[in-house]
Amino acid sequence: MTDNAADITDRIASTAAEVGDRLAELLADRRGETEGAPTHLMAAIRHGALNGGKRIRPFLVLETARLFRADREAAMRVALALECVHCYSLVHDDLPAMDDDTLRRGQPTVHVAHGEAQAILAGDGLQTLAFEIVANARTRLPAEVKVALVAALAHAAGPAGMAGGQALDLASEHETRDEAAILRLQGMKTGALLTFACEAGAIIAGTGEDDRERMAAFGRTIGIAFQLADDLLDVTADTKAMGKATGKDAGRGKATLVGLNGTGWARKRLDALVDEATTLLAPYGARGETLAETARFVADRRN
Amino acid sequence: MTDNAADITDRIASTAAEVGDRLAELLADRRGETEGAPTHLMAAIRHGALNGGKRIRPFLVLETARLFRADREAAMRVALALECVHCYSLVHDDLPAMDDDTLRRGQPTVHVAHGEAQAILAGDGLQTLAFEIVANARTRLPAEVKVALVAALAHAAGPAGMAGGQALDLASEHETRDEAAILRLQGMKTGALLTFACEAGAIIAGTGEDDRERMAAFGRTIGIAFQLADDLLDVTADTKAMGKATGKDAGRGKATLVGLNGTGWARKRLDALVDEATTLLAPYGARGETLAETARFVADRRN
Repeated sequence: MTDNAADITDRIASTAAEVGDRLAELLADRRGETEGAPTHLMAAIRHGALNGGKRIRPFLVLETARLFRADREAAMRVALALECVHCYSLVHDDLPAMDDDTLRRGQPTVHVAHGEAQAILAGDGLQTLAFEIVANARTRLPAEVKVALVAALAHAAGPAGMAGGQALDLASEHETRDEAAILRLQGMKTGALLTFACEAGAIIAGTGEDDRERMAAFGRTIGIAFQLADDLLDVTADTKAMGKATGKDAGRGKATLVGLNGTGWARKRLDALVDEATTLLAPYGARGETLAETARFVADRRN
Repeated sequence: MTDNAADITDRIASTAAEVGDRLAELLADRRGETEGAPTHLMAAIRHGALNGGKRIRPFLVLETARLFRADREAAMRVALALECVHCYSLVHDDLPAMDDDTLRRGQPTVHVAHGEAQAILAGDGLQTLAFEIVANARTRLPAEVKVALVAALAHAAGPAGMAGGQALDLASEHETRDEAAILRLQGMKTGALLTFACEAGAIIAGTGEDDRERMAAFGRTIGIAFQLADDLLDVTADTKAMGKATGKDAGRGKATLVGLNGTGWARKRLDALVDEATTLLAPYGARGETLAETARFVADRRN
């Protein structure tokens, strides 16, 4: 591991700890947005959100916001909202009717621990909370910026984004898909939220269209890398390293780019994607270094 | 039926037809917010949203907006967003893990027609679309108003509102509950969205706090009436009139105010609630008449 790699790993880990603490505060009983919510529902929501995740999406929001010198606390609130959307999608994806997973990060999934009904409602509630967090008075941003964030986040999460990608994925199990179909599906299922994460920093900072577009392109590029690394891990890692069942995609007959083109191709493609992502950051010089290292981290991750 | 009753029934029906048409337009394939969404997911979403409902919530948004002379097209967009949230809740509430209903308005529920996975995602997607519709540039309202609407809608729909009410309801089947517990549950499960519906008109019009608070109180009052009428229908109507299974609450051991206090008490209480709602509208004189008739309609409905 190079010094840079050690450095970015540490930075991501310390941000993840901070994001986890802030989420725990936000989702505590008798707090702001959730005052009056049933305690058992909040327990299921916390189970789904406080799962020790790497918090890559919040990290990307915070780092792109920093690139454009935006207010960190405002960016943190948006990062928390985005993580709520991501966690809602995990809770619902794990349901028996969906991917039917009983284990996530080595822990029982929400429906295993709290029952299916509360898991559905916990996911629903996490999604709602995300939009409340962005719109809330405590998120100190101009109203125009909040509206732009709500619109962009909703578009990334909705039927034309993440939810649509999952719908395609479930509908096409045991179907043969070509590379274009796989890229479309993954671009929606995992790419849309990662793209929003990188765009969000530019929206929060109120940059021009150019910077916002460049960050969106950066997000799309690492989105593809993220999914490719995930597909690689699915065929190479063991359950222990991942904290969840592996080899499932192949077992389910799901087409992936790794299955289609092989692991050698995938590793080369990952290098090319990191280069593309780094090139997009060139206009920002040394200030873009952390994001470039993040792209490398995403491509190289081992769990 | 009095002339007024016939009149309000007609007005609600014609608004319902208009809302249905606008929802159909909004949820068509290859349209604005849903461009690129999978066709089978959109079919499930349309199944859940274009169900011939009475569209009481949109009607309340439009009528309270009219009371304060707000722009009708802006109010219509907010009404459509709110109906998306309501429909998402119906799709999820009907799921096997929740109320396990196979029939709604005489039609198979979404999971029966499209499978459980697509039904979960259709509900998820309808919720996301709601927030996108409010924030969208086509909803012509000042950014401050949009932010206030997103915050209020999210709060009404989330863990401290509708989703929390459903979580309480499912957790407390076969539990004995007193009147206060029932009112809390129903105030969240059905009251929160009806309250938002009435408040929304004031938010859209940018009224002062007084008018907004009065409309919220009006919404809470007809929310209680709505639920009481529903509970009465559950014990008195047959499946044909309701287009769904009846007598289910009693069969599930769910406590209702009707079960606790009897049908005679419930009918008297409904009259008192209509009086309360009408009194709240007194400051608006003749302009408040339609909303007063709506309160009567909600209390008297037979299906």
